[in-house]
Amino acid sequence: MPVRTLYHLPLDPGSRAVRILLGEKRLEVALKTEQVWKRRESFLRLNPAGEVPVLVEEDGTSLPGALVIAEYLDEVYSEPPLIGADPLDRAEVRRLAVWFFGKFAREVSTNLIEEKVTKRFLGMGEPNASAIRAGLANIHYHLDYIAWLSERRRWLAGDLFSLADIAAAAHLSALDYLGDVPWEEHPGARDWYARIKSRPSLRPILADLIPGMTPPRHYPDPDF
Amino acid sequence: MPVRTLYHLPLDPGSRAVRILLGEKRLEVALKTEQVWKRRESFLRLNPAGEVPVLVEEDGTSLPGALVIAEYLDEVYSEPPLIGADPLDRAEVRRLAVWFFGKFAREVSTNLIEEKVTKRFLGMGEPNASAIRAGLANIHYHLDYIAWLSERRRWLAGDLFSLADIAAAAHLSALDYLGDVPWEEHPGARDWYARIKSRPSLRPILADLIPGMTPPRHYPDPDF
Repeated sequence: MPVRTLYHLPLDPGSRAVRILLGEKRLEVALKTEQVWKRRESFLRLNPAGEVPVLVEEDGTSLPGALVIAEYLDEVYSEPPLIGADPLDRAEVRRLAVWFFGKFAREVSTNLIEEKVTKRFLGMGEPNASAIRAGLANIHYHLDYIAWLSERRRWLAGDLFSLADIAAAAHLSALDYLGDVPWEEHPGARDWYARIKSRPSLRPILADLIPGMTPPRHYPDPDF
Repeated sequence: MPVRTLYHLPLDPGSRAVRILLGEKRLEVALKTEQVWKRRESFLRLNPAGEVPVLVEEDGTSLPGALVIAEYLDEVYSEPPLIGADPLDRAEVRRLAVWFFGKFAREVSTNLIEEKVTKRFLGMGEPNASAIRAGLANIHYHLDYIAWLSERRRWLAGDLFSLADIAAAAHLSALDYLGDVPWEEHPGARDWYARIKSRPSLRPILADLIPGMTPPRHYPDPDF
């Protein structure tokens, strides 16, 4: 019997981030797809916000939201540390995690994933073309920022692979499934993402296929 | 000479939250109003996201974003602890902090503050009536949730006053300045907020007046 359960959606960046975190810490998990739009009562008891990801530990403890889960896992299962060593390193990791879960989500991922995936699966009509245009325009400066950071540091927040890299990779991997990441124009960001893709924690995510949606050929390939 | 500087905006909930945090920890701070829309270069170097709050410590360390600052302050100035004692308490505090900084901001505060304040000060034209309607409609279930939590717990996240209360109070105090909190329909939430208002950490915030905008009479009064 698995020790813990993650309620998730396959293209939800927060859910992907938690799967990578668990993989890095070598913690086993059973996945349950949660159709959040159905607002199941027993799921709302786990997370009144009605959103994935929610991690349920063996003892029934439920933890909602990628940032909350990340802080909890780093406190309880400290190896390897994924939120930095001293308070300043930790602030830099969190600054970038909030950048991707907040700003990048608002400016890029939500525009693309909601319009292209959520609406389609829920039969909510045609995607909003101006939201998609905004997402595709905004992604460029974020990729430039990733390249700028990884020219100056080994990983996004410093010497160590961290939640900052995980947050960025979780968002970009979901968008890459949709073919919406212009890697060829951003070789610096591509080199960073190639290093991430070769990590064992990414493999199960990159192997997931969503019925009716085929990712581009380069999607699972670390040499792309 | 003050030990630290906070770049802020008077009605920005994140900035208010940091001021309350600093007050609770009895840390002195000098305030600088940052007109973020001017995108000053030296401010962008402090926070590439171009947003307030940004806290600059005496040694020049800059910390951007309410959640990042809160975690940093709780690590470096541990008394009184404002993010809970054990990992589960801490997860509950963070769940609610993310609720207010994320969900409440998206569903309520941004709709009201952007439309009524930001647009007006920047001369960006008429407020969007449907955004305002959405904000005013959504606030009710959040106030019900605050009442529900505070019937069951001494403070929102448990026995201790925490970042969860601070995040909620920061948002509600900004909206209360606009006269947009229907306290009379939500006595449970009002009782919780009355307890918050009587804390010394709130006083400087409730005494701030924004030129050209008068808050309702009850705004600074703990017995309202």
